Amino acid sequence: MPNRTDLFEPDTDDTREAIMKATYDALSKHGYADLTIQRIGDEFDKSKSLLYHHYDSKDALLVDFLAFMLERMEGTIPLEEADAADDRLRIGFDHVFTDFLTGDNEEFNRAMTELRAQSAHDDTFREQFTKNDRYFKSRVEDVLEEGIEQGIFRDVDTERVASMIVTIMQGAMFQATTSTEPDLEAVKTELDAYVQSRLLADD
Amino acid sequence: MPNRTDLFEPDTDDTREAIMKATYDALSKHGYADLTIQRIGDEFDKSKSLLYHHYDSKDALLVDFLAFMLERMEGTIPLEEADAADDRLRIGFDHVFTDFLTGDNEEFNRAMTELRAQSAHDDTFREQFTKNDRYFKSRVEDVLEEGIEQGIFRDVDTERVASMIVTIMQGAMFQATTSTEPDLEAVKTELDAYVQSRLLADD
Repeated sequence: MPNRTDLFEPDTDDTREAIMKATYDALSKHGYADLTIQRIGDEFDKSKSLLYHHYDSKDALLVDFLAFMLERMEGTIPLEEADAADDRLRIGFDHVFTDFLTGDNEEFNRAMTELRAQSAHDDTFREQFTKNDRYFKSRVEDVLEEGIEQGIFRDVDTERVASMIVTIMQGAMFQATTSTEPDLEAVKTELDAYVQSRLLADD
Repeated sequence: MPNRTDLFEPDTDDTREAIMKATYDALSKHGYADLTIQRIGDEFDKSKSLLYHHYDSKDALLVDFLAFMLERMEGTIPLEEADAADDRLRIGFDHVFTDFLTGDNEEFNRAMTELRAQSAHDDTFREQFTKNDRYFKSRVEDVLEEGIEQGIFRDVDTERVASMIVTIMQGAMFQATTSTEPDLEAVKTELDAYVQSRLLADD
């Protein structure tokens, strides 16, 4: 996830936006297991009854939060800053490894891993996370297809390579949040080597 | 994880072995969140008081279970079935993708993802999972080093490539247990393409 400040409108009057911001803060502070609607309410500067009015349960709120995060993240991926597909890919990787996996959102990321693990036994979470994955995979596929058209990338199976890249991101996220020695720098460097050896066309 | 039958001694009299088997079965049946010592006891054919005698808490038992699984898995990785490093790598990947991520252990794997996600806020789990990761990474590194000595692999940074491979396995595990459409076949095929383009020496 990008930084909190990139995700939320400052000083908004919109209720959903305010609820989402409070959820982000409460998740970062308490993690999933210790999250309660009450604790989300504590981060919320409007009337707490609004929370109960909009959501039946903590999990219903969290599913909406995941959908909201997906929408917001769509706007923050800085792929458009470059034209060449290999540069776009590198910008995307930088975004994930630098802005998202390291930086200020460690606590939030941990909560997201706990939340994603709920999908192991919760179909609604599982469907929402799958939707998020599908979106990222399709964005990666688009870049790969552009790269092939631009003659920068080899004519690879874009769906397969996109599956691999999304899997690497998920593994990196899982490690960053659950290992005492995540070696993200190594993975990022090796990801570049993968792009180099597997994708870049010989010319 | 390999299949249950490969992991446990049949008809053992050993108490720890019997506790570990009961824990495996209870985790597969109930998942982490709904696991209790009582439920582990239900899968256990000896006196339940033995459980309380050996372990102070569910989490203490689970940390011992993780250490036990690591020991046992060390014995089940069939890398020795081939001499050439690239074949060994393929056997290892097959083992993970075929015996472990698909097959009968879906429920057990889901529980393992939930358990690993506990590491987000539990240092003892985090240390044990890191130990397990470190072991797998070192096994992969050994095979890569052999391959370089055999002249089969390029002279790559083995630690970095091993980090990548372990990250891919973790991403695949995370996906297999938390997505409605994990595309493990695509990842496995692309992993072969990665080995081919990045590791195999031109000759």
